[in-house]
Amino acid sequence: MKEQEQIRVTAYKASGFAGRYQRLVRDSVIPYQYEVLHDRAGAEKSHVVKNFENAAKALRGEDTGDGFYGMVFQDSDAAKWLEAAAYSLADFPDKELEARADELIAKIAAAQDDDGYLNTRFTIEDRDKRWTNLLEGHEMYCSGHLFEAGAAYYEATGKRELLDVCLKNAEHIYNRFVLDGKEGFPGHPEIELALMKLYRVSGDDRCLALAKHFIDVRGVDRDFYKKERDARSWTVWDNNAEDGDYQQSGRPVREQSEATGHAVRAVYLYTAMADLAAETVDGELAAACERLWENITQKKLYVTGGIGSTVIGEAFSVDNDLPSDTAYCETCASIGLMFFASRMLEARPDGRYADVMEQAFYNTVLAGMALNGKSFFYVNPLECVPGISGKAATHRHTLTTRPGWYACACCPPNAARTIMSIGKYAYGESADTAFCHLFMAGEVSFKNGLRLGCETEYPFEMKVRYSVSGAGRLAVRLPRWSKNTVLTVNGSPAEHTVRDGYAYLTVSEGDRVELTLDESPRLVYAAERIPELSGKACVCRGPLVYCFEGCENGGDVLSLRLTGELSAETTEGVGGFPAMRVKALRSAGSEELYSSVPPTLTETTATAIPYFCRANRGETEMRVWLPAML
Amino acid sequence: MKEQEQIRVTAYKASGFAGRYQRLVRDSVIPYQYEVLHDRAGAEKSHVVKNFENAAKALRGEDTGDGFYGMVFQDSDAAKWLEAAAYSLADFPDKELEARADELIAKIAAAQDDDGYLNTRFTIEDRDKRWTNLLEGHEMYCSGHLFEAGAAYYEATGKRELLDVCLKNAEHIYNRFVLDGKEGFPGHPEIELALMKLYRVSGDDRCLALAKHFIDVRGVDRDFYKKERDARSWTVWDNNAEDGDYQQSGRPVREQSEATGHAVRAVYLYTAMADLAAETVDGELAAACERLWENITQKKLYVTGGIGSTVIGEAFSVDNDLPSDTAYCETCASIGLMFFASRMLEARPDGRYADVMEQAFYNTVLAGMALNGKSFFYVNPLECVPGISGKAATHRHTLTTRPGWYACACCPPNAARTIMSIGKYAYGESADTAFCHLFMAGEVSFKNGLRLGCETEYPFEMKVRYSVSGAGRLAVRLPRWSKNTVLTVNGSPAEHTVRDGYAYLTVSEGDRVELTLDESPRLVYAAERIPELSGKACVCRGPLVYCFEGCENGGDVLSLRLTGELSAETTEGVGGFPAMRVKALRSAGSEELYSSVPPTLTETTATAIPYFCRANRGETEMRVWLPAML
Repeated sequence: MKEQEQIRVTAYKASGFAGRYQRLVRDSVIPYQYEVLHDRAGAEKSHVVKNFENAAKALRGEDTGDGFYGMVFQDSDAAKWLEAAAYSLADFPDKELEARADELIAKIAAAQDDDGYLNTRFTIEDRDKRWTNLLEGHEMYCSGHLFEAGAAYYEATGKRELLDVCLKNAEHIYNRFVLDGKEGFPGHPEIELALMKLYRVSGDDRCLALAKHFIDVRGVDRDFYKKERDARSWTVWDNNAEDGDYQQSGRPVREQSEATGHAVRAVYLYTAMADLAAETVDGELAAACERLWENITQKKLYVTGGIGSTVIGEAFSVDNDLPSDTAYCETCASIGLMFFASRMLEARPDGRYADVMEQAFYNTVLAGMALNGKSFFYVNPLECVPGISGKAATHRHTLTTRPGWYACACCPPNAARTIMSIGKYAYGESADTAFCHLFMAGEVSFKNGLRLGCETEYPFEMKVRYSVSGAGRLAVRLPRWSKNTVLTVNGSPAEHTVRDGYAYLTVSEGDRVELTLDESPRLVYAAERIPELSGKACVCRGPLVYCFEGCENGGDVLSLRLTGELSAETTEGVGGFPAMRVKALRSAGSEELYSSVPPTLTETTATAIPYFCRANRGETEMRVWLPAML
Repeated sequence: MKEQEQIRVTAYKASGFAGRYQRLVRDSVIPYQYEVLHDRAGAEKSHVVKNFENAAKALRGEDTGDGFYGMVFQDSDAAKWLEAAAYSLADFPDKELEARADELIAKIAAAQDDDGYLNTRFTIEDRDKRWTNLLEGHEMYCSGHLFEAGAAYYEATGKRELLDVCLKNAEHIYNRFVLDGKEGFPGHPEIELALMKLYRVSGDDRCLALAKHFIDVRGVDRDFYKKERDARSWTVWDNNAEDGDYQQSGRPVREQSEATGHAVRAVYLYTAMADLAAETVDGELAAACERLWENITQKKLYVTGGIGSTVIGEAFSVDNDLPSDTAYCETCASIGLMFFASRMLEARPDGRYADVMEQAFYNTVLAGMALNGKSFFYVNPLECVPGISGKAATHRHTLTTRPGWYACACCPPNAARTIMSIGKYAYGESADTAFCHLFMAGEVSFKNGLRLGCETEYPFEMKVRYSVSGAGRLAVRLPRWSKNTVLTVNGSPAEHTVRDGYAYLTVSEGDRVELTLDESPRLVYAAERIPELSGKACVCRGPLVYCFEGCENGGDVLSLRLTGELSAETTEGVGGFPAMRVKALRSAGSEELYSSVPPTLTETTATAIPYFCRANRGETEMRVWLPAML
């Protein structure tokens, strides 16, 4: 089942909504980020390309000029850009882009040490510190991103140079940790999921063995990071080596049940666990993944598909703690949640996984990027109040406008690569069935010979039309949010069976399959156990969560209230994406801080825009959840 | 006007509610805290008395044994205990307690250096560091608390030993900063307000001059703390020397308009400013106080009279940021707010000040202490959810049960001294008028010859009966929260004038003055500008804010909702204090984290207890603000 990922890379050609976003990434984000990597975009200093050039000089024994600059994981920005470029090249051949990518790959290759080691920070400076700080050093994190890029670039272009660099680096790591038996596991999981990809592209069993090794040893020696810290005299940022829960290493991964610690690291780890569990048919590992999935999706998930409630350690909080205004909800964490969901889905088709994957993509992941592709959010709160957001000591992280780039620039290129490879998430296939997980317009080919043309303006239009070439078994997801779903083939009710949120049917050449989903906007409520959301509701339609911004609501969304009945109509929105006019109430109370004069409620019409469209018109109030007068 | 404070100390003998609390402090808190100071209570180690003993040894050149232990401001715990003991002795003569106090005073006196310097930390260790870290060293903070104790003990007992120690210490500080012109001002304001007290008791003009000096120079050199830091090689906790707003020294105090930084320090400073402004008839300083008062009470005040929204720096947040669950609301900050209010009130009688003073006292200050007087909260949030409170990274400070003592033990003795001197806040007098600010049962004598007997079970009973001895002018506060107030003299409507929240009337020997306040429970709403409180209401009656605890609400307060109409009746509560049975709604929604199934609302009766009674029955959910279905 797993090797089919290769097919999907080149077999989806997007149109519609995904097409628009892919063009944005191709035309704006990738060129802009390329300039950033070369410090030519006028944004936060990056130095990424210079780091590789200087590392090559260091290897040749030359003066390293302006040396290393940036975070310990600075190299990964180049890898994520290359991965996005690879997906772009697969769909939109572009000689100039390919030449730029080849040039960067050559610089990366030149920075690889003879023994396969590859990391500019520990090549330009601190060579003696290699592998002495797995907790914070991010050497394997950078390798992981390079492996993902290497696999993608090889698939897109057939060129092996970067792939060979990756395999040589993987061999170096394999030799150290498996053959030589050196202790330890990555502080920031990432290489595990990347090794699975490298394994599938290359067929090199050592990649699989190394991924399994890191999964297996993680948390077995729960004092590893502490011992490692005590054995060295340096630190990057004094990460808490003794907090096993924070490091996802307080116990062996197969015994874990609660999603804890750094949210991105957690979901990258769970992604690899799910992938490995399916690959190696490891029931115990799969059960741990299912428990962690349940914990996230029932106790720790924002309605926007965001995860990681707290800026303190960029981490999951305890169960049911989902503050809107101080939410961290890192863009990368929701990308990681999509990874986790897609691996769970590959292991067992169940609409629950795809529902969450879609929720994360259309809301938090897309909200991380401005509609023009040129500025980015790292943090995606569900409430923004100018004067408090970005200002209060507890809200410093909730910026009200997107910066052009970040010193810690993980999110922008991560969003770019995810959008460019969205076909991998939208479509899947098992031995005998082609799966339509998301409803992405475009053309897609499956290994079983089936080809689909998908026409839809989803997520705004709720009709999805598939035209079939070839014949075979098809599975179409029936989203849980759709209370009224109709599936037809050639205009007649489709003969199909339903299992775990998918409609299974057999289709033939020329068939027109049409899925009609519930187009009604709906009010969504949270479980009573979530303190933050008591008495509140939010407005959703299809997979989209809507928010209220000050821009078209008189500058004041704090005094808006919903009622228990939702009456809404479509109106013009931001960036060409439809908004909704919603019947609401406006509360007007005393100006006194506290008063026993009850506020008056007046009927009003409020405008809600898709959450992913937020913050494109300057600093303004924003709220997803409004108090609901039931 | 100011020297009348002396009278009030001994002239109020409490009964009723205040009497009950004073007996609790006398019988339980003062003896318990005495044991704590001697490390005999089985609570957090204190070492306070040993510190004084060891400092005396250091001065005699002897071995200092187990040396210094504790915070830099550890000495102040002894001072606060002595101050509480002094107030207790004034009302309840007690030879044994007086002997204990005298013994402690002797130990303190023995720890004073020949030059008047007095601080155990910098006497036992680090003598060369004296006065090198005004920002963090707390030398003047400890002196300030000693001055307050010295003034109170002299007033209560007529004994001069501690007062003389204080005056010698004040002279030392005066010589250094005024005569010798050394730069600087206290990192933690406190000595300024204490010097005003010392000045009134002693008549020593240098105390007034020194208080004025510190007020005048504060923030004039806004880089003072930075320069001080750069000139020394040590730090206590690396307080941010460059954040002038946090240190209330970003600009001269007369130019300040927004309450910023560490909340306790801020209100201690503003207290001294208000006191000095009245004493020296300084209109510019008074105007600054009024601006700061407005900022606090209209933008930064919890309905419980708590201030300081954030644990980060124990500080005020930006305007309108008043989270319930992560609120810091330090007990000491509300005590400081009472100080500030009482000085504003002394300068100009206005019910606004007394309303806030009462709000702080009956809610946050009393909530800081368990009903048995043996455990204490430092932090007083308005929502508590076991599993989140005290557990989430952002909620570590919101403990669900009161500890017996704290390593940083400022709050428990601060509450004790405030309760024992509540007469100073409850009653006041100007040249020709006796003021009843709060409605505290007991006997009170005024300098103008008037004596009042006050009978009431306030804050639960809303009738306050005064019997008059002597004759004169009386002013009785008309609380803003009372929408229906009746004032009678001898059973007939009282002839009176109303000005700024006070009824002014002339009374004669034998008069029975009766004030009847609005006894209806009321719903209170916050201004729309407070994001946290959108769509919520809380229940108040008289000066009391009520909360809902899990104990008598089926363990679940998160699903309780209020309606726009309050129907409530009195019922039995905790610790003998009445509770309220309130008609409410119970919301029952889906168990799914998010669902479009609307919750059902069922009528129910919920029980609310006074906020100050909370957390006396083990860990439980608690909420002040509930969503209100208007």
